[in-house]
Amino acid sequence: MRGPRFTPIVQALPATVPFVGPEQMERDRGAPFAARLGANESVFGPSPQALAALQASAGEIWKYPDSTSFELRHALADDLGVAPENIVVGAGIDGLLDSTVRLMVGTGDHVVTSDGAYPTFNFHVAGYGGTLHKVPYRDDHEDPDALLAKAHEVGAKLVYLSNPDNPMGTWLSAERIEAMIAALPEGCVLVLDEAYVEFAPADAVPALDVTDPAVLRFRTFSKAHGMAGARVGYALGRSDVIAAYEKVRNHFGMNRSAQIGALAALRDHDWLAHVQSAVVAARESIAAIARDNGLVPIPSATNFVAVDCGGDGDFARRVLGALVARGVFVRMPFVAPEDRCIRISAGPPEMLDALAAALPQALEAARNG
Amino acid sequence: MRGPRFTPIVQALPATVPFVGPEQMERDRGAPFAARLGANESVFGPSPQALAALQASAGEIWKYPDSTSFELRHALADDLGVAPENIVVGAGIDGLLDSTVRLMVGTGDHVVTSDGAYPTFNFHVAGYGGTLHKVPYRDDHEDPDALLAKAHEVGAKLVYLSNPDNPMGTWLSAERIEAMIAALPEGCVLVLDEAYVEFAPADAVPALDVTDPAVLRFRTFSKAHGMAGARVGYALGRSDVIAAYEKVRNHFGMNRSAQIGALAALRDHDWLAHVQSAVVAARESIAAIARDNGLVPIPSATNFVAVDCGGDGDFARRVLGALVARGVFVRMPFVAPEDRCIRISAGPPEMLDALAAALPQALEAARNG
Repeated sequence: MRGPRFTPIVQALPATVPFVGPEQMERDRGAPFAARLGANESVFGPSPQALAALQASAGEIWKYPDSTSFELRHALADDLGVAPENIVVGAGIDGLLDSTVRLMVGTGDHVVTSDGAYPTFNFHVAGYGGTLHKVPYRDDHEDPDALLAKAHEVGAKLVYLSNPDNPMGTWLSAERIEAMIAALPEGCVLVLDEAYVEFAPADAVPALDVTDPAVLRFRTFSKAHGMAGARVGYALGRSDVIAAYEKVRNHFGMNRSAQIGALAALRDHDWLAHVQSAVVAARESIAAIARDNGLVPIPSATNFVAVDCGGDGDFARRVLGALVARGVFVRMPFVAPEDRCIRISAGPPEMLDALAAALPQALEAARNG
Repeated sequence: MRGPRFTPIVQALPATVPFVGPEQMERDRGAPFAARLGANESVFGPSPQALAALQASAGEIWKYPDSTSFELRHALADDLGVAPENIVVGAGIDGLLDSTVRLMVGTGDHVVTSDGAYPTFNFHVAGYGGTLHKVPYRDDHEDPDALLAKAHEVGAKLVYLSNPDNPMGTWLSAERIEAMIAALPEGCVLVLDEAYVEFAPADAVPALDVTDPAVLRFRTFSKAHGMAGARVGYALGRSDVIAAYEKVRNHFGMNRSAQIGALAALRDHDWLAHVQSAVVAARESIAAIARDNGLVPIPSATNFVAVDCGGDGDFARRVLGALVARGVFVRMPFVAPEDRCIRISAGPPEMLDALAAALPQALEAARNG
């Protein structure tokens, strides 16, 4: 027969799209959103220094990027007190999760995560033929004991944990995570997704130990640094584990300006502090708006707040749909019981005003619908 | 044992780096290059409209990119007379080759290319466990007959051809490639790399037939559009084949500004025409410089010229080393007999002046060394 012969793994994959992005939702509804509070972006924007670096570098976009991300890796290493060889830069945490799964997972391999945790990780596990095992959240937190028990049971090669957590915004203590690391099964790597680490209290961040081959930590410029569109993330780990990425990564895949902008963002500590306090204020505003409407905000160590709508998933989905119809883009957890919540990103006052205006109507519509 | 268990494919891979980029070479030599003529970048730069779009979009880098590349795919479709469903956008041709190989190639699968053709394709084939078969160039051209014969012999799932060719700059007629397409074995897909298509004569470009499931064509904004640092490429094919990329690609992996800049570049036909004529002039200058030094330029349909240094690979490597030592970054083919050449990218007069000044000294150094 004429045409491609896809691999058995690919033939078995659904032709699904993991997310529908807000641009597609805007096209579908025929109008832009008034408040873009669904993707946990940093609506406060990038550092002015990063912005200037992006603009200044545009004229040299004709040059291929530095395939080693030399300057960015060295700056990160200096900041974190590790060596550049402990760091690999990739196209966001998404891209690095792809490479990570590819390095370790094939048909017949087992991976553990929480039911309702980051779906793009699951997409990659399926994409390389792995078998995914999910354990439930416990009291709106990821559950290290259940994750560990399942990892031991199935002989997992990877176990995924995000701390602070997405989509609930909750967090575990450093002590709890360090105990989990100590109890990992042989041959199992903890994929510790720290996308929101800059918003976490210090005692929620385990000590950075790059001598341990069983832990990979993933961080990003998409959240606190306000550069989601640039696609810059990095993974931290033992140098021999990090070196393995060289075998599979797209060496010239990192946008040149994005690397330069990320470097400038990293150096702008004032902007980071500004965003951190703006996020604290926005979390308090979202919580107040929730309470004003009789809803319960879940305490958050991220740049978003999960708000318990007080009903089941169908009710929360109706609230979400009614908000989206009113130009307020938010998202929600995928599975029960967390899907009783809607997830609202931190934003500036004008967007939260739009939320405050739309939420009572959305709740009324949901109660009537 | 504590730590990762890599897949058998990964364990067998060398920890090599496919290319050393010019930034790394500059760090190694402790000085910048005076002439950056080695990576077939468009030294003439991006369209002023693309530059303006990159700068204008920087402030919205806090937004995740449109995961569907909706506007860019629609604009490309309009330009090319195909449907948006015939197009997938990716992080340069490199990123799309990765996905393409991943979709079709696993352990035990066979792939055919030319010995000395694009090494990143080979990197991906090895990276997914495929077996690569190489056939020689014939008279400095890729050889469709040899590629087809080998593809039939081994039952190849993919056969790679670049037209115009890198690293030699030569080209095949549309008729020749259409005959090759007609003679593809069952279950074999032609990976037609058209990175340099905007520099090719019209009769070197086969008709675009997106009804054929056995052909995928790869194009880029890195060459004629002067945006190598942005990492934007696209693949063209039958809609059901293109749809398969949705199963594996990083949906949110495309830099937001890069998409916006590429769209502006696509619309700036005047700049493209300017670059095309500047490249013709630069090719003529490079050829003249070569002849002035007693060397033979190979006719080119790309933005570079392979120059026959008149000796063997060792001699050409010495010429190249002597040029690099004098601040002129060029590259060369990897295998004999093409490695008798050095490969010089089109550049503006001041860089070609630097080449003209350095080449006699480099040749003398090579002859003495």
